[in-house]
Amino acid sequence: MHVPVEFAAKTFNVLARIRERAPRVHCITNTVAQQYTANILLAVGAVPSMTVSPDEVGSFVADADALLVNLGTFDAERRAAIDVAVGAANAARMPWVLDPVLIDRAPPRAELARQLACRAPAVVRLNTAEFTTLSGGDPAEDAAVRFANTYGTVVALTGRVDRVTDGVRQAVIANGDPLMGAVTAMGCAGSALVCAALTVETYSWIAATAAVVALGVAGEVAAEAARGPGSFASVIIDALHGLDAATLRARTRVS
Amino acid sequence: MHVPVEFAAKTFNVLARIRERAPRVHCITNTVAQQYTANILLAVGAVPSMTVSPDEVGSFVADADALLVNLGTFDAERRAAIDVAVGAANAARMPWVLDPVLIDRAPPRAELARQLACRAPAVVRLNTAEFTTLSGGDPAEDAAVRFANTYGTVVALTGRVDRVTDGVRQAVIANGDPLMGAVTAMGCAGSALVCAALTVETYSWIAATAAVVALGVAGEVAAEAARGPGSFASVIIDALHGLDAATLRARTRVS
Amino acid sequence: MHVPVEFAAKTFNVLARIRERAPRVHCITNTVAQQYTANILLAVGAVPSMTVSPDEVGSFVADADALLVNLGTFDAERRAAIDVAVGAANAARMPWVLDPVLIDRAPPRAELARQLACRAPAVVRLNTAEFTTLSGGDPAEDAAVRFANTYGTVVALTGRVDRVTDGVRQAVIANGDPLMGAVTAMGCAGSALVCAALTVETYSWIAATAAVVALGVAGEVAAEAARGPGSFASVIIDALHGLDAATLRARTRVS
Repeated sequence: MHVPVEFAAKTFNVLARIRERAPRVHCITNTVAQQYTANILLAVGAVPSMTVSPDEVGSFVADADALLVNLGTFDAERRAAIDVAVGAANAARMPWVLDPVLIDRAPPRAELARQLACRAPAVVRLNTAEFTTLSGGDPAEDAAVRFANTYGTVVALTGRVDRVTDGVRQAVIANGDPLMGAVTAMGCAGSALVCAALTVETYSWIAATAAVVALGVAGEVAAEAARGPGSFASVIIDALHGLDAATLRARTRVS
Repeated sequence: MHVPVEFAAKTFNVLARIRERAPRVHCITNTVAQQYTANILLAVGAVPSMTVSPDEVGSFVADADALLVNLGTFDAERRAAIDVAVGAANAARMPWVLDPVLIDRAPPRAELARQLACRAPAVVRLNTAEFTTLSGGDPAEDAAVRFANTYGTVVALTGRVDRVTDGVRQAVIANGDPLMGAVTAMGCAGSALVCAALTVETYSWIAATAAVVALGVAGEVAAEAARGPGSFASVIIDALHGLDAATLRARTRVS
Repeated sequence: MHVPVEFAAKTFNVLARIRERAPRVHCITNTVAQQYTANILLAVGAVPSMTVSPDEVGSFVADADALLVNLGTFDAERRAAIDVAVGAANAARMPWVLDPVLIDRAPPRAELARQLACRAPAVVRLNTAEFTTLSGGDPAEDAAVRFANTYGTVVALTGRVDRVTDGVRQAVIANGDPLMGAVTAMGCAGSALVCAALTVETYSWIAATAAVVALGVAGEVAAEAARGPGSFASVIIDALHGLDAATLRARTRVS
């Protein structure tokens, strides 16, 4: 598939608008990822909120601009909160992102992910093992394209290279650094970035690709300054916070 | 209002006594803030504990020197734990701090905050939006002074400048750095610092002001060394840990 | 007791095998420690999972190579999850580590720790106050040796020096740095490292000692580069990630 969008400029544009508008992103995410996700959102100028209480998640989502639903640490209260939150997001026609963390490891979580995929997430962001579980084991190269078409969503498939497709277009992103896999919650935080991008870019495929590019480029910049995964986890936040048009122009690799 | 206290020396004195006594601070706080709050307390020499289990929070508070009640991530178990913990703190005449995080975003949380304000917190620490909700929308300049008098508490109102009042005196603190707003849980950790200060300084207005000054000055020192919010989050902990009398003398700005 | 093992080489060997095999470690741990524990495990090349949902913890443990049971933040859901997880680990003859955090502060937690000690943990890792509570106050010098014999387990007792005994052998480890006590969850993360070591070294006493040495040496390396506990928390992860045979040879102090 052809990629007619100039993603270096597009990504900077998305970042610039997030920094200007300070959109609110409500995150129902696992307790391992909450702090890092909040800090990644703050680094780009978004305003995170994190409650998982079913009694109040509705008010938070109503005031938000996008919603993240991450299935890690799958406790009872989170499941109830997810149901309320997705209902509120869809009622408000607010974009929401599904991150079905580790559904390949736990059948009950996979079942919930399949139900949620039918509730119109703007983007589903996941790795290959998770996608294989979600799509029922469809092994074909173009399974993600088919899934995107079937569910009317965008699939952002992360791995050695990242692939983002809406069923018609596909972006292949070759940015990033192996150290990103050595920091917990990096993927979860990436999904939160997709949420932030969706608040300023209504074309979900562009928003998801821009978020993946931004994090990948920040990761490359950070890897040059870090001495290991500990310092990398901090430095990538600095890099994302300071990401400018020139750096994106020099490093963005989307085909 | 006049500020007769020399807060540079006072703040150093409070820090020195915390470092010497290693007071225990029990924190009922949100899962986003738990790790950062614990690390901030450890950095000044206090000993944090964090359980939210209603079955055991009573024992922890009984052994503690101060209690933090933070309303972020407002789940059912935390609400039960708060009730037990505040009861135990008041029974032991132990100071406790209320941090009504984001009550402007969720009515049930605001209702709980109003009830807790009547249970004699030593200090209520919050931002303007949260204060407006807690005080029932009182828009006057001196609303915090009135609130402090009505409830017999100290209000620490954070913002571009921070204001701490006990209804009689008011300290206006001009320390800090904008990067503090780009790190999640910075405010929550600040409230925990107020708790630590209350364990060594019985005059709550001085304790709260000293804690706000300490964090603000550490933030200024850190901002000079940091390259963005990621490194800033670590470096401010280093700065707080090493904060000395000379730095406080050079930087404290209280009027 | 004599220590015939050359622990510098042994520790490097354990680290090398973890890096090669990427074992899965399931952690039921407190919310304060989850992120840091995951990052410590990733830094050595292990793969953490963290769910505490009783509905799915069984599947996660079945797919794991070792289990950590940490009693911090002792909520109802975690208690149910612990029961399921220990059952699954024992059924699979998978090693598991008990970390009875702060049982000296809360009787209900101590009672659970005593029950769990009877369910054949490979290693119990704890500090002196926790051990005194667990062992029923046995004050003798050799109480840990007796406990290890009685329960058929390894006791890793941390403090100014760390002592690891299986009831027959005892290793006294003099590595580490005081800054390790100024970072929350350092002990919890250390227990997770013991889990990772147990997946590649079946002799639990050697595995536990190697893990304690690795973290202690990384702490010494990090202390030389850090400016306080904030940067130390990141730098020790870098140091652990890059720990090599020469550094271990130069610094390991086991007697």
